[in-house]
Amino acid sequence: MAKPLYVLNGPNLNLLGTREPEVYGHETLDDLRQRCERKAASLGLSVVFRQSNVEGELVNWIQEARTDASGVIVNAGAFTHTSIAMLDALLACPVPTVEVHLSNIFTREPFRHRSYISKAAKGVICGFGGLGYELAIEALANTIAPGKAG
Amino acid sequence: MAKPLYVLNGPNLNLLGTREPEVYGHETLDDLRQRCERKAASLGLSVVFRQSNVEGELVNWIQEARTDASGVIVNAGAFTHTSIAMLDALLACPVPTVEVHLSNIFTREPFRHRSYISKAAKGVICGFGGLGYELAIEALANTIAPGKAG
Amino acid sequence: MAKPLYVLNGPNLNLLGTREPEVYGHETLDDLRQRCERKAASLGLSVVFRQSNVEGELVNWIQEARTDASGVIVNAGAFTHTSIAMLDALLACPVPTVEVHLSNIFTREPFRHRSYISKAAKGVICGFGGLGYELAIEALANTIAPGKAG
Amino acid sequence: MAKPLYVLNGPNLNLLGTREPEVYGHETLDDLRQRCERKAASLGLSVVFRQSNVEGELVNWIQEARTDASGVIVNAGAFTHTSIAMLDALLACPVPTVEVHLSNIFTREPFRHRSYISKAAKGVICGFGGLGYELAIEALANTIAPGKAG
Amino acid sequence: MAKPLYVLNGPNLNLLGTREPEVYGHETLDDLRQRCERKAASLGLSVVFRQSNVEGELVNWIQEARTDASGVIVNAGAFTHTSIAMLDALLACPVPTVEVHLSNIFTREPFRHRSYISKAAKGVICGFGGLGYELAIEALANTIAPGKAG
Amino acid sequence: MAKPLYVLNGPNLNLLGTREPEVYGHETLDDLRQRCERKAASLGLSVVFRQSNVEGELVNWIQEARTDASGVIVNAGAFTHTSIAMLDALLACPVPTVEVHLSNIFTREPFRHRSYISKAAKGVICGFGGLGYELAIEALANTIAPGKAG
Amino acid sequence: MAKPLYVLNGPNLNLLGTREPEVYGHETLDDLRQRCERKAASLGLSVVFRQSNVEGELVNWIQEARTDASGVIVNAGAFTHTSIAMLDALLACPVPTVEVHLSNIFTREPFRHRSYISKAAKGVICGFGGLGYELAIEALANTIAPGKAG
Amino acid sequence: MAKPLYVLNGPNLNLLGTREPEVYGHETLDDLRQRCERKAASLGLSVVFRQSNVEGELVNWIQEARTDASGVIVNAGAFTHTSIAMLDALLACPVPTVEVHLSNIFTREPFRHRSYISKAAKGVICGFGGLGYELAIEALANTIAPGKAG
Amino acid sequence: MAKPLYVLNGPNLNLLGTREPEVYGHETLDDLRQRCERKAASLGLSVVFRQSNVEGELVNWIQEARTDASGVIVNAGAFTHTSIAMLDALLACPVPTVEVHLSNIFTREPFRHRSYISKAAKGVICGFGGLGYELAIEALANTIAPGKAG
Amino acid sequence: MAKPLYVLNGPNLNLLGTREPEVYGHETLDDLRQRCERKAASLGLSVVFRQSNVEGELVNWIQEARTDASGVIVNAGAFTHTSIAMLDALLACPVPTVEVHLSNIFTREPFRHRSYISKAAKGVICGFGGLGYELAIEALANTIAPGKAG
Amino acid sequence: MAKPLYVLNGPNLNLLGTREPEVYGHETLDDLRQRCERKAASLGLSVVFRQSNVEGELVNWIQEARTDASGVIVNAGAFTHTSIAMLDALLACPVPTVEVHLSNIFTREPFRHRSYISKAAKGVICGFGGLGYELAIEALANTIAPGKAG
Amino acid sequence: MAKPLYVLNGPNLNLLGTREPEVYGHETLDDLRQRCERKAASLGLSVVFRQSNVEGELVNWIQEARTDASGVIVNAGAFTHTSIAMLDALLACPVPTVEVHLSNIFTREPFRHRSYISKAAKGVICGFGGLGYELAIEALANTIAPGKAG
Repeated sequence: MAKPLYVLNGPNLNLLGTREPEVYGHETLDDLRQRCERKAASLGLSVVFRQSNVEGELVNWIQEARTDASGVIVNAGAFTHTSIAMLDALLACPVPTVEVHLSNIFTREPFRHRSYISKAAKGVICGFGGLGYELAIEALANTIAPGKAG
Repeated sequence: MAKPLYVLNGPNLNLLGTREPEVYGHETLDDLRQRCERKAASLGLSVVFRQSNVEGELVNWIQEARTDASGVIVNAGAFTHTSIAMLDALLACPVPTVEVHLSNIFTREPFRHRSYISKAAKGVICGFGGLGYELAIEALANTIAPGKAG
Repeated sequence: MAKPLYVLNGPNLNLLGTREPEVYGHETLDDLRQRCERKAASLGLSVVFRQSNVEGELVNWIQEARTDASGVIVNAGAFTHTSIAMLDALLACPVPTVEVHLSNIFTREPFRHRSYISKAAKGVICGFGGLGYELAIEALANTIAPGKAG
Repeated sequence: MAKPLYVLNGPNLNLLGTREPEVYGHETLDDLRQRCERKAASLGLSVVFRQSNVEGELVNWIQEARTDASGVIVNAGAFTHTSIAMLDALLACPVPTVEVHLSNIFTREPFRHRSYISKAAKGVICGFGGLGYELAIEALANTIAPGKAG
Repeated sequence: MAKPLYVLNGPNLNLLGTREPEVYGHETLDDLRQRCERKAASLGLSVVFRQSNVEGELVNWIQEARTDASGVIVNAGAFTHTSIAMLDALLACPVPTVEVHLSNIFTREPFRHRSYISKAAKGVICGFGGLGYELAIEALANTIAPGKAG
Repeated sequence: MAKPLYVLNGPNLNLLGTREPEVYGHETLDDLRQRCERKAASLGLSVVFRQSNVEGELVNWIQEARTDASGVIVNAGAFTHTSIAMLDALLACPVPTVEVHLSNIFTREPFRHRSYISKAAKGVICGFGGLGYELAIEALANTIAPGKAG
Repeated sequence: MAKPLYVLNGPNLNLLGTREPEVYGHETLDDLRQRCERKAASLGLSVVFRQSNVEGELVNWIQEARTDASGVIVNAGAFTHTSIAMLDALLACPVPTVEVHLSNIFTREPFRHRSYISKAAKGVICGFGGLGYELAIEALANTIAPGKAG
Repeated sequence: MAKPLYVLNGPNLNLLGTREPEVYGHETLDDLRQRCERKAASLGLSVVFRQSNVEGELVNWIQEARTDASGVIVNAGAFTHTSIAMLDALLACPVPTVEVHLSNIFTREPFRHRSYISKAAKGVICGFGGLGYELAIEALANTIAPGKAG
Repeated sequence: MAKPLYVLNGPNLNLLGTREPEVYGHETLDDLRQRCERKAASLGLSVVFRQSNVEGELVNWIQEARTDASGVIVNAGAFTHTSIAMLDALLACPVPTVEVHLSNIFTREPFRHRSYISKAAKGVICGFGGLGYELAIEALANTIAPGKAG
Repeated sequence: MAKPLYVLNGPNLNLLGTREPEVYGHETLDDLRQRCERKAASLGLSVVFRQSNVEGELVNWIQEARTDASGVIVNAGAFTHTSIAMLDALLACPVPTVEVHLSNIFTREPFRHRSYISKAAKGVICGFGGLGYELAIEALANTIAPGKAG
Repeated sequence: MAKPLYVLNGPNLNLLGTREPEVYGHETLDDLRQRCERKAASLGLSVVFRQSNVEGELVNWIQEARTDASGVIVNAGAFTHTSIAMLDALLACPVPTVEVHLSNIFTREPFRHRSYISKAAKGVICGFGGLGYELAIEALANTIAPGKAG
Repeated sequence: MAKPLYVLNGPNLNLLGTREPEVYGHETLDDLRQRCERKAASLGLSVVFRQSNVEGELVNWIQEARTDASGVIVNAGAFTHTSIAMLDALLACPVPTVEVHLSNIFTREPFRHRSYISKAAKGVICGFGGLGYELAIEALANTIAPGKAG
């Protein structure tokens, strides 16, 4: 069976559903995990779903994904804009990466417009809330085995 | 029946398949049109698929979409980075808009990193080639009738 | 009889009255045309009133005004901030030009603060809605035949 | 009877008619005062016309206008580009304000392109010499009692 | 007896309680004066409390404080961001200075983020409304006679 | 009894009293803890006082404060200038936050002038050494139960 | 026989000879066309000579040149500084391109110093008036069949 | 007899001799006045020597100098870097102006490197303490009656 | 015996030998550790060699080095460009520090050109792969006991 | 007979044919000299052809050209981007100057996009290798005796 | 007898009297040398007067001045804005330096506003033509033997 | 026998030992030469050691090194920050180059942080005084014959 997709979530995403719902929606992180699991299963895939507020732990997980995952989905939260360490880990990670954001970061404060993660991503999806994770899974499934997904 | 989705393509996208295939892939614009039609049909939707090299014509189509479309997908090509006129047309357009790019614009020249379109878009999808259009259709379908798509 | 004043309107101004009325007011472009015609008539002048979403068409009309108009009023809309082509056409146009904006562009997004048009204008009027067009006509009337207007 | 319009002039405007006439014209400040009085009278309004080289005095007058004026016309001269204190006074002033400049400031040195005053103004009129004051009075008259002026 | 603390207030602070109360609160400048007097008295200190809209008058008072005050509290209002003259006066003033702002200036417009006053201040307190003045008095009391205040 | 105030200290503050005493003073972090406890007790409040060099741990504590604290005092040290993750945690934290710095950061290197924390703080106090923590406690006490503190 | 050279002229170049002759000279666009035809003929080549004020039309012609021309000469006028669409069309065009300007753009306003066209051009010739077109034809002739021209 | 030279001193220069003597020297403003009077007398000239902390008063004096002085020496102090009003007054002043600074402003903080006054000055002298005023008098004497001074 | 040298490695350096070998070479981190141990031993020194992906852990180790090390060698990896916390820890660390990079960071992306670490380092060595660590040990040995090393 | 054209080459151009041939081509500087001599002779002109790595020597030659040349062709190499001294020499040189570059400098590193030389040149030719020198000679010939060259 | 003053002139100053006389005046460099010699003699001093177009030669002379001169006057011409090498030589030169410019560099192009020389100069004199050299000699004489000059 | 290493020193390095010893140390350039010769000899290598204040001479020597040296060590002094000509010479030089600075340039003025030389260097060593030259020799020796040095 194929290696799982790693779905890695950055700082404060554990607050989903409670924090600024007008920006981030009412879905909790656990809802999001289940949504990803269902979508992946429908495509014959599995997911490893994690969250951390510690940049170094996210770097560790990206390093782990180098051998243990078939693809990576990263919602780096605030680290999107500041973490060159995560960028470097992703540049060293041979499996395809998709960057996801729940909100459209380009309509928010200017300091949220710059992404270091983008420089190592195959593609970016933002603005669709939890659906964006499903679209990212579909995009990765299609990348790994073109023509089968969607 | 629902109003169609407008899929609007900007300058030089008529060259798809021949222009810099290492950046934009081998699919032609007509292939892309058929791909969008199939995807939309599978979700019970239809598409109006157009391309122009003239900024004003794209503005006209976005204005038309205000009453005749249920959603807009825009790949504004080079106008992404320069057209405040298209931004204004989209701001005046009440139906949801998704911005799509074939390539990951954030790994290209700096002048391609800024998008005026993003300021009026519900979300952005870039880097997945033609698949990005399908993901955008799925995202719009979900927005219009949540829970039915995907 | 004197040559008419050219009143040239840029992209999306055809949506006036429907688009973001809290910014642009409820008057339609046709209302605006009639208002200009009445004001001009009261000063013994006539107007040629046009709108286009195509930058090149606006350039054509400015070129036409070189010989056929006694003055030009330009509300270039979004092209205000991006069109060096319209600036060049105005620089080549010997009749006086007034730049008009319905809203006060200096209280809006930063990218709307810069105007290429201003560099070729005799003066600028912004923030007074449709009344601004009347003031512009008055200013041009005064420029062409000082002391008669107002 | 209605409260008067305050017409407030900033530094060096007392030199009008003698200072750089190729930029500012030959009209003196007293000519300008009479012109404003005539225009206001023709619209059933009166004006309080003042000039100062002291920023704090202009702030005082704007504060006074909060209760004693029905509108404010400000030609802040050099303070346009440097006075946040005048901006703050205007932000605290509930009557409508029009910013006026004799010359088209956008065709002059770059440090004259930025206006703090604009952020608190209903509208801006520049480039029409003394006529600009008349247009501003007309615009205010129209704002206070729409449909009667002009 | 100790020399008084000088509490110097810049432009528009005389409008306190009426101007943008959602930003600056409902307390008037006279309320603030009494609050400072009570707080100072409770610490065995007195205050000289003044306000001016004229930058030069504030410079004069800071110069006076060099010999007549034991400490200075400055809420320079709009001059915070523009007055190098007040900075220079404070740099020449040997008694300790505290900069106070009623609102948190760092959550307001970008041009309010820079302070010249800070470069000559012992410390800065902002965002606590009138309470900030009391905290500043406490801080100065502690600086002048450590251990007695608070 | 009221929930405690959280006093959270960022990287290198555990070195207080030994590191650059000419900038940060001779007080140790433990001295500071006791000072805060005494001040809080005098106002009928208690404090939870913590320090970490790990950004993620500070994010965790801010998240914890959402339910367990009545106010937050943050001296984020170096993270002040780089941590959008802490900003986001504070934005999601409904209790009032005060930003404190021992030194006047505005008289130090330019890269220490920008604070992400300020954007989520009620107010800022800097430059008063350990006394600043006491002033912050007083400010929070006053915010929670106005009129009782100080 | 060889495919022709495309000589494409951007906005306002149809005004040549009348517009700002002190900058652009007295030659008309038709004079320029004849000059190009003579020069090309002398080198055994032919030219297709066109002008448009519409960016999209220029994009169309560059796309046409991909198959129908042996080389392209572009004087993009104002679009030089703003048109990424023309840049993209040229990047997709396999035949050699020469950028020409009548005036030395580097001695004019700063916004005329940046050229998008240059990024896709083999070379640039500016400042020689109509002669620049002849030099460009010679350069292209030499590129296509080295050693024969000049 | 010739009209006097106006020697105008800006904010805080009344503190000379007491304020930061390591930067500005031990000479007082009165010493400086006498020095200027002696130097002028030696060249058959007289001086009017003034100081103000109020920008508007300095503007008034420059306006006065238009008719009453044969030359102007300005040490605008902090206003050097912020006063466009003084620049405008000087631009309107037909007699030659020399800008003087006691210290070498180019070795101080960056915000002291920019001078608005320079744009209207015949020349600049800085870094020579009180001697700079004498050199300025000599320069003006030479300008007014070349060959006689020095 | 002398205290050891601390050799501290930042994020992703545990991937050495596998990650982008064309940039970073084929040596693993363990090879590098042995190389450092051999070099140090040849100079009568020992090393403590560590790596972490967590910024706070690196801060802890630098703090530890204040008392337990005779010198510090830091290859902060991606934290070089973002960690003011590590800079502050190094500024508080009295033993000499050498900054090392395997690659020449100045020939890479612009965001890798800025180093916070340099501001606290005795010197910088970059571009020599693993040899750079040996040169750094030699430089520190020479600093601690001049004349004995190399 | 006419004075010769000066063809002046800056630093490292003596390495032509060996240095980065993929950028600069295989022609040597001597080849280039002969090419210029032939082209000039064909137009009844002569050339003085020189190269130096010393900025001051190039300045000397430009000064010499003021009286001894009928035109100047400058390929300033690296000095293009840094030498205000050469710009000043050219501004003082009454004969027409043409700036030449072998490569298209606008497709290279950003620091090669700015040219001081352009500000004093009649025109610029870049990107055509050695042919560019011939085109420059033709352009100068045409400037000196219009209609005879080419 | 005292060591001489070194008067060092940078590139293109040998053209004085012929180059752009409207900017630099009609005096030749030899006139200027004589003027300096006369002025110095009148103060009991001598001068060594030199000019070079070669930056390195000017560096050599400044180094020579370290032991052979009692003061240095530098008009670095274009090198003012680009030569860190001359700055470094001046920083290593213990005798006082005065920077002189014939024109007021602050009214010219922006790239002429920055001076590296100023950072090592006691003072700056600009805008007085040849008289500026005399003033500089007077200033140096006064510095070396205060009270005797002028 | 191997070709020598070229050790090239830029402007003002001939002053070593006398100029700002707190920055550059007490060693003279001749001491440094001997130190390099000894170090090279110990590794079976020789050095050619030169210094010049003339940029063009340094360019000449780098060109000479293309055929006559096995490696280049450059301490370009002030030219580090300004000389694109030296960069170009190094880019054309096939032997490995090491950039050396005596001081840590990153802790000095901002204009000393940018190095053109770095773009062509294998590596950079700064901050170790004369020892840095020895480390550079060791690094080059290791590059030329890996494993033998050190």
